[in-house]
Amino acid sequence: MAVYTEVSDEDLQAFAAQYDLGEFVSCKGIAEGVENTNYLLQALQDGATAPDSYILTLYEKRVSPEDLPFFLALLEHLAAHGISCPTPIHGRDGAALRQLCGKPAVIVSFLSGMWPKRSTPQQCAALGTALAKMHVAGADFEMHRANDMSIDGWRKLLEASRARAHEIRPGLADTLTTELDYLSANWPKDLPKGVIHADLFPDNVFFLGDELSGLIDFYFACDDFLAYDLAVCLNAWCFEPDGSFNITKARTLLRRYAEIRPLNAAEFAALPLLARGSALRFLLTRLYDKLHHDDGALVRPKDPLEFLARLRFHQQVSGPGAYGLDEALAGA
Amino acid sequence: MAVYTEVSDEDLQAFAAQYDLGEFVSCKGIAEGVENTNYLLQALQDGATAPDSYILTLYEKRVSPEDLPFFLALLEHLAAHGISCPTPIHGRDGAALRQLCGKPAVIVSFLSGMWPKRSTPQQCAALGTALAKMHVAGADFEMHRANDMSIDGWRKLLEASRARAHEIRPGLADTLTTELDYLSANWPKDLPKGVIHADLFPDNVFFLGDELSGLIDFYFACDDFLAYDLAVCLNAWCFEPDGSFNITKARTLLRRYAEIRPLNAAEFAALPLLARGSALRFLLTRLYDKLHHDDGALVRPKDPLEFLARLRFHQQVSGPGAYGLDEALAGA
Repeated sequence: MAVYTEVSDEDLQAFAAQYDLGEFVSCKGIAEGVENTNYLLQALQDGATAPDSYILTLYEKRVSPEDLPFFLALLEHLAAHGISCPTPIHGRDGAALRQLCGKPAVIVSFLSGMWPKRSTPQQCAALGTALAKMHVAGADFEMHRANDMSIDGWRKLLEASRARAHEIRPGLADTLTTELDYLSANWPKDLPKGVIHADLFPDNVFFLGDELSGLIDFYFACDDFLAYDLAVCLNAWCFEPDGSFNITKARTLLRRYAEIRPLNAAEFAALPLLARGSALRFLLTRLYDKLHHDDGALVRPKDPLEFLARLRFHQQVSGPGAYGLDEALAGA
Repeated sequence: MAVYTEVSDEDLQAFAAQYDLGEFVSCKGIAEGVENTNYLLQALQDGATAPDSYILTLYEKRVSPEDLPFFLALLEHLAAHGISCPTPIHGRDGAALRQLCGKPAVIVSFLSGMWPKRSTPQQCAALGTALAKMHVAGADFEMHRANDMSIDGWRKLLEASRARAHEIRPGLADTLTTELDYLSANWPKDLPKGVIHADLFPDNVFFLGDELSGLIDFYFACDDFLAYDLAVCLNAWCFEPDGSFNITKARTLLRRYAEIRPLNAAEFAALPLLARGSALRFLLTRLYDKLHHDDGALVRPKDPLEFLARLRFHQQVSGPGAYGLDEALAGA
């Protein structure tokens, strides 16, 4: 919930002049997103009666500029394959990525819809379908980006937080070390891979009612196991505010996914482990953010312990069936 | 820069159902405004091809609910008299003001335009005209609200900050006390009065280029000397980032204002004093906010000392001519 970069009028007008979008008639900082600065831009084409909406994003320090061509090409690829996602707008010079206020900046198409503060099973069903379609659409995307938020990245995060993890909960460093060692030793090697979103939380999925209208925020997208995206969604969508696991949501999410892209036996079997890994990933990033939080920052750090509870759940499940899908339905 | 109240999907849909605006298709928190929570709402009427934009405001603690009927009626009155300002949208039941998430909430019309991060003399000229038109339009507005941010209010703010004012600058409490005593003894009694905006800073005035497209944020509006609004604008628009007073901006602002509503001799003579009062008002509110700032808050407090420098300027001017207007042009 922040605008990190204030754009002056002169800078905005000079930026606008590089596009064929008409006159910029409104530009309001959006109080969502913790990584980048986003403006909701309205531009009026000559002769049009109503302005069109766009999102203007300035990439702040957490996104590496060298990764931007991958992210933007991915959005264009997915949009061209029928996935509803923000599409980069090209300027008169053909470029989509340029500089604004000394930061990489891009204008993308605006998506209608609102993210669910509290998701319904119908929304989880739509999510399963959309995620599978995104994985299928990404199959022939030719660029690559390693997942820097997988095992090696987790180790680095843990090292950066180990000495102070006890401030959040006594013994937390040991718990995390044991888990990470286990996951490192047992992490799958040969599940189907492809381009994944890797951060598909509810605030990155827009709905109109129960109908999914688009996926946003692909700035963790990378190559990894496709089933890992499902594991992220299990963590991000299927736990209720009281901490309980909603198996109805998980089952419908997994079933709808498997209708479009069936899971093989190895993926099915790996679900609990992938879910543990994904819970650990968000636990570690939240822990890091909490311990390294600047009190003057405009974003409140999220509670890492929510994901400790989810990790415990996945450690204790009897097997992949605990997520509501049986092997036959998985398609294996 | 904050969203204080997160609105759930259910609450938003229930709220939407009370209006004839069509389907709410987007609702994004706006990272501007420090007093209230604002969402940019888009709603699609049946059969329309593009959504219409609105602002949904939830009133947070700084606005007194008993003042809201005054503010909303004022917006309607001004809009009906040709002033471009947000206009409250009425629901099916005829009401504009209702409750959302336990807070007073209203939907108003959306104004195109952007506020100037750094104003031009042309914008100051347009501001002078718009302010005078607003004062003229408000002349037959029948509701009343006392200015709780005038002398008595300043005294309360000073009392609440006196003990710790030295943390901001040694001797500040004495400086402020002396100034407030002087202003109390010399404050004008019988200047032309009417409804004023009282907080017309650049972020409350929208432009398309140099053309003024609307005035917003009337939540300090009240009855007071009309010329006090001009004094606020002198402080808010005519000082450059380096602290220097831009007499070109002041002159054009005052001249354009006086073309529509000429100042009488008493108003002209009172300008330096009103400007001192207005500088003290923002100095005191910023001082209070800085001293009572919650580190967990999402808004960074502004620097009170900016207005100490402006106060010093007004204390030292030779007379009202220092603002670029001579008595003849004032219309007196």
